[in-house]
Amino acid sequence: MTCDILIEGAAVLAMDAAGTIHAPGYVAITGERIVALGAGRGRDAPEAWDAPSIIAGSGLIVMPGFVNTHTHVAMAAFRGLGEDVPDRLRRFIFPLEKRLVTRELVRRASEFCIAEMLRSGTTTFADMYYFEDEVAHAARRLHIRALLGETVVDFPSPDSAEAYGGIAYAGRFAAEWRGDSLVSPCFAPHAPYTVADDKLRETCEEARRLGARILMHVAETEAERDLYAARGTSTLRHLDSLGCLGPDFVAAHMIHVDAADIELAAARGMGVAHCPASNSKGGRPIAAASTMVEAGVRLGLATDGPLSGNGMDMQGIVGLYPKLQKVRLGRRDVVSAQDAVYAATIGGAGALGLDDITGSLEPGKMADILVADARSFSMLPVHDWYSTVAFSMRPSDVAWVLVGGKIVRDRSGLTTVDEEELLDSIIRVAEDCRREQAGL
Amino acid sequence: MTCDILIEGAAVLAMDAAGTIHAPGYVAITGERIVALGAGRGRDAPEAWDAPSIIAGSGLIVMPGFVNTHTHVAMAAFRGLGEDVPDRLRRFIFPLEKRLVTRELVRRASEFCIAEMLRSGTTTFADMYYFEDEVAHAARRLHIRALLGETVVDFPSPDSAEAYGGIAYAGRFAAEWRGDSLVSPCFAPHAPYTVADDKLRETCEEARRLGARILMHVAETEAERDLYAARGTSTLRHLDSLGCLGPDFVAAHMIHVDAADIELAAARGMGVAHCPASNSKGGRPIAAASTMVEAGVRLGLATDGPLSGNGMDMQGIVGLYPKLQKVRLGRRDVVSAQDAVYAATIGGAGALGLDDITGSLEPGKMADILVADARSFSMLPVHDWYSTVAFSMRPSDVAWVLVGGKIVRDRSGLTTVDEEELLDSIIRVAEDCRREQAGL
Repeated sequence: MTCDILIEGAAVLAMDAAGTIHAPGYVAITGERIVALGAGRGRDAPEAWDAPSIIAGSGLIVMPGFVNTHTHVAMAAFRGLGEDVPDRLRRFIFPLEKRLVTRELVRRASEFCIAEMLRSGTTTFADMYYFEDEVAHAARRLHIRALLGETVVDFPSPDSAEAYGGIAYAGRFAAEWRGDSLVSPCFAPHAPYTVADDKLRETCEEARRLGARILMHVAETEAERDLYAARGTSTLRHLDSLGCLGPDFVAAHMIHVDAADIELAAARGMGVAHCPASNSKGGRPIAAASTMVEAGVRLGLATDGPLSGNGMDMQGIVGLYPKLQKVRLGRRDVVSAQDAVYAATIGGAGALGLDDITGSLEPGKMADILVADARSFSMLPVHDWYSTVAFSMRPSDVAWVLVGGKIVRDRSGLTTVDEEELLDSIIRVAEDCRREQAGL
Repeated sequence: MTCDILIEGAAVLAMDAAGTIHAPGYVAITGERIVALGAGRGRDAPEAWDAPSIIAGSGLIVMPGFVNTHTHVAMAAFRGLGEDVPDRLRRFIFPLEKRLVTRELVRRASEFCIAEMLRSGTTTFADMYYFEDEVAHAARRLHIRALLGETVVDFPSPDSAEAYGGIAYAGRFAAEWRGDSLVSPCFAPHAPYTVADDKLRETCEEARRLGARILMHVAETEAERDLYAARGTSTLRHLDSLGCLGPDFVAAHMIHVDAADIELAAARGMGVAHCPASNSKGGRPIAAASTMVEAGVRLGLATDGPLSGNGMDMQGIVGLYPKLQKVRLGRRDVVSAQDAVYAATIGGAGALGLDDITGSLEPGKMADILVADARSFSMLPVHDWYSTVAFSMRPSDVAWVLVGGKIVRDRSGLTTVDEEELLDSIIRVAEDCRREQAGL
């Protein structure tokens, strides 16, 4: 049988419900999709697969691309800026954005940041920011799968002269990009404390009318927790009372949640984007992520934005998740390496409601694939595939990345763009930022 | 003026007491040592430095090499093996070592692991294991600075047929390698719960008689804490009562310590090797590392061994340290990015008692230098040098590494060894391990 691309390697980690590993194994791809996978070399399989394009090697680990469930990619422009400033969001980030964020900055910084993600093996991400139609163009240009949430917030924002202008902006964005094979426009109410109840209800209703998903920061801050506790409720129960929660709702953070909230999150089928790097860097309590998973909550992992989380590679997250959960529970036998890789792939796809098309290697699914070369000083020796992926893989170990059957990264870098152009571009963007920021 | 090597880059982070940054800056090296550093290009400096070997670039960050204060490099052979086995040390690791650890395994795995460390910018490490004279040969071959502690333990070990054979082994090792410019032999009593009090006293006395340092696991486990609490004391106070503590003593972990222990550690001038990755992966409480630093304890950072800590690059540690401390204290304004880089360089050198020769860039010190190329998708944009190093640098961003004035790594890899040979070697070692381990 002939397929378009045949991948053969030391191990194929399918990340399917059965936990299938083919070692060695192969994956056959035709068009956008996986058509077959199995043990051994594809050319020796009963179907005797052959392809014009073959990726093969005795040290290759083949797995689903990472799913990064919560980002603000355009903030790559500001990475490292004001790193140790207190009360960073209100005193630093919001004024900075007001002055600096333009359509052009969003496009250029998004292209740069998507490049970092694709190079390190992320094939799907969910984003919340301004000018999300520019992020959409960047995602298409570099060829990555994306849920892109246009921000709705109670003050004038970089792309809306009026408070709550994001509702109309998101509506236009959703209409323009309807049916795109890579980009799904979403509504992104910023947080419960920056969106009034009636506007939040309106945002969710409008999103659902247009078939768009809803992305939101939820139960992230202490102030938010105290606000709803004083009203005898919790952030999540409050959002539920407004009709927000459902399988099309993705909550980032979910730090300040109690047992009833976790039960509610599972019952509503909503997604959770767990952000261990940015949460810990912010000095926040460790979210009860593994407890949520055990309760049946659809949970994925996320870097958060480059200002809060810095590194946008999921290699920095997939190992941090089990470490922090082990610390939280005071035991090493929780969140195995396999659990961690699960959360970073099919778990994340489930949280975003995309597990029917991506997040695992199964016939019929989109060919969103990471191929790592384990013949490296960070990854060898390989005794346990999951441990190697969770704790040892580094971004530079990623050798090929496919999104929807297209090879977007090979050993020499991204195939879709001129990398040097993107590097030059972000340097110029950052210089502009520093000039402006000097006046803040 | 002519020097041997001139390095010119975007920034020179001296990591000296004054926190000097020359941006742009230069470093001039002659023989093993730094002879000058300053602002601007060295060729334009008043001394008009020139050199036969020039490392220069507008995106280069020049800083001291990382100091990894606690490792077991030969355990690279086992990385990822039995990742999620409970009671791993007694039930898994000790039997595994008894069966597998030979002189040849130690040499081959050490060479591989030192390669991973040097490639990622570590220029000094402290190790505890068996056959440490083989680790010494590996360190010399690859050219890295090392404190190497031969293990003393209360059972027959891979290199000693009798319990406590390590004392005599360490004595021979110290005699043979006395005066070496890179390797300092040390005595490494394994832990308070695996070395009897009289033998611990004897070990420390013998080490001091030979002018060797003492490396030890201290206050790591709950069982150890409870043991000494039942006797009305603490691990550290018990060690002090035996006369162990001093500026030549380096304690790894130091998790179960109270305020009196911290005061004692500062008073004795001892070093502490803080291991955030392995401690968190082990589900242990977060050590009070930043509190120790504030109390004046000489604290450095460490990966721990590849079995407990997996990745041996310090990039995986330098950002984890502040994150975990912020979680521990529940606030983001502790352990700045600069504090983190400090702990990973000059802090670690101080903990090992080597801050007179390495850990910062100052005239007269050894030229142990990391040069990173910030023109990468992980590091750009650079708004804050310390944030970029602490949170964004990845191992592949390291472009040159010097140890004692010798270029041991350049853009194409290690200069001292055939990298392919080391990769092949660890694959064979791991295959042998798996065959043997199948019988465990």
